[in-house]
Amino acid sequence: MSLLNKQVLLAQRPTGKIKPSDFNIVETNVPVLANNEVLVKVAHISLDPAMRGWMNAGTTYIRGVEIGEVMRAFAAGIVTASNHPDFKEGDTVAGTMGAQTYAVMQGKHLTKVDATKVPLSWYVGILGMPGMTAYFGLLEKGFPKEGETLLVSGAAGMVGSLVGQIAKIKGLKVIGIAGGKEKCDSLITDYGFDAAIDYKNTDNIAKAIRAAAPNGIDIYFDNVGGEILDAALLNLANHARVVVCGAISQYNEATHSGLKNYMKIISARGTLSGIIVLDYFNRAEECITQLAQWLAAGKIKYKEHTEQGLDRFAEILNMLFTGENKGKLVLKV
Amino acid sequence: MSLLNKQVLLAQRPTGKIKPSDFNIVETNVPVLANNEVLVKVAHISLDPAMRGWMNAGTTYIRGVEIGEVMRAFAAGIVTASNHPDFKEGDTVAGTMGAQTYAVMQGKHLTKVDATKVPLSWYVGILGMPGMTAYFGLLEKGFPKEGETLLVSGAAGMVGSLVGQIAKIKGLKVIGIAGGKEKCDSLITDYGFDAAIDYKNTDNIAKAIRAAAPNGIDIYFDNVGGEILDAALLNLANHARVVVCGAISQYNEATHSGLKNYMKIISARGTLSGIIVLDYFNRAEECITQLAQWLAAGKIKYKEHTEQGLDRFAEILNMLFTGENKGKLVLKV
Repeated sequence: MSLLNKQVLLAQRPTGKIKPSDFNIVETNVPVLANNEVLVKVAHISLDPAMRGWMNAGTTYIRGVEIGEVMRAFAAGIVTASNHPDFKEGDTVAGTMGAQTYAVMQGKHLTKVDATKVPLSWYVGILGMPGMTAYFGLLEKGFPKEGETLLVSGAAGMVGSLVGQIAKIKGLKVIGIAGGKEKCDSLITDYGFDAAIDYKNTDNIAKAIRAAAPNGIDIYFDNVGGEILDAALLNLANHARVVVCGAISQYNEATHSGLKNYMKIISARGTLSGIIVLDYFNRAEECITQLAQWLAAGKIKYKEHTEQGLDRFAEILNMLFTGENKGKLVLKV
Repeated sequence: MSLLNKQVLLAQRPTGKIKPSDFNIVETNVPVLANNEVLVKVAHISLDPAMRGWMNAGTTYIRGVEIGEVMRAFAAGIVTASNHPDFKEGDTVAGTMGAQTYAVMQGKHLTKVDATKVPLSWYVGILGMPGMTAYFGLLEKGFPKEGETLLVSGAAGMVGSLVGQIAKIKGLKVIGIAGGKEKCDSLITDYGFDAAIDYKNTDNIAKAIRAAAPNGIDIYFDNVGGEILDAALLNLANHARVVVCGAISQYNEATHSGLKNYMKIISARGTLSGIIVLDYFNRAEECITQLAQWLAAGKIKYKEHTEQGLDRFAEILNMLFTGENKGKLVLKV
């Protein structure tokens, strides 16, 4: 029998906004498995801001996807055939499987996950890369201390909402920046933030931050870059830590707008650093165990936004950049 | 008897380049000393890039000088009268005395210095604030490790040349960026740097850095900001430390040009932080002792560039920004 595999290939490097023509949707036959290979039926594909960077040429913290290559994506799925001793049919697994319906994976590149207690899709979200980004970014780079004030942008997104909730568990005052009343209300009522700033409804973001945090920001967790990052820098408390996770507002710009106020980091005796989640993959278990425990105890909440259809890949991915998604964006295959 | 005191007052806040009309030179009578006050005849005034920032309104890490106030300056001098038990006529002292011929100082704001073994002027340079900036900036923020590569800009200046020399003592490969052949030659022959980049004679600074440090920069000590900082960021090795000391190329600009390549700090898993030397004044003795020992052992070299005349204050201060000074710029009163 010959299985058909629908694949999303990178057709061209986008300039500005991602367009459907930046991808080719093709169907190929699933090849015969070689030794140590595993065939996975992909169930849930994670759509992440970092993907925009992966579509560029060259290597930053990771090499860019090549033209004609399957678009890189984290995913979770079910093993349908295995030539690897550690995996058998029916196993639930997660890994960098790419945007396709079937993935032929080296066994060593797959992680078995337990989908009996939580939905399998959570392993591409809160129990996957974005969850680890929030967890290690805040704890390993932000050094949160009880009583401090944290500001997080992209606060209604997967990473932002989790950063804020972990900070609340650690005893910090948490202020979130998000776009629109609905998202801002959700920060307070759903996620327990102390204050929310609606950047779409604020003339002066720096002033709004100052009003919410008159003594300054001890940790700024940046998910957006650009003007909001610059506004946050104007409000740093002494010894502030600025943790840059992404720069989603900049991903679509050919020339990044500069960080104007970086000297504020210096005068505040602060530091700027970043989180590259790949560096923490060897500590995944520690993170997943802790997050699963907080989830079970009701201390953190998680929302998914599911869309269907590989054919709509570009359109769905773009929702991240327009802010249309409500919760972690997952493509159900 | 009434002593005349020549003072340099801030007349207006400069826009762009500093002009003589930004200062008023006045003569006043030295007042009668109050309790615990000390009268110092100022001998050597330090001219530092940070002064440009002090001329702006508002408070950054330190409040701006007010219009009509004596221009803030570090200086060394000789006590001529004292109402403070710890000081007597003839003592050599250092402190923030301002740009004037006589300073009435609270005793607690003065530090006694030993000018029997080294020139008194050294206490406004290598054994003063700029020396401490280099010492603590490199050691406390740069975390230098043997075998690493350090890049320093403004390398022929007081701070830059000392940073490079301390890094050499610590076993690092040292590359300096300076303007002009004479300065670049001096980096190698006088200060023992491994390589020098003449930014005035280089089309592409980023390329020149890459050629000198093909494996990347572990520590970038920035004295200039602007384009050179951005070029350095393109060449960071993993886990690089960017230490921002000043942004001399930006001090005269009303609107700072942004830091375009800050995301390179993130992808390199690096950090950006700064050095505010005021934070280390309580550790001055440790620094002075160590630097004096290295100087005595011939391990570090120090050059002074002396100019005379308080009346020429603006003109002399401007030499820092045009790069005319050869060595630490000191105004001899």
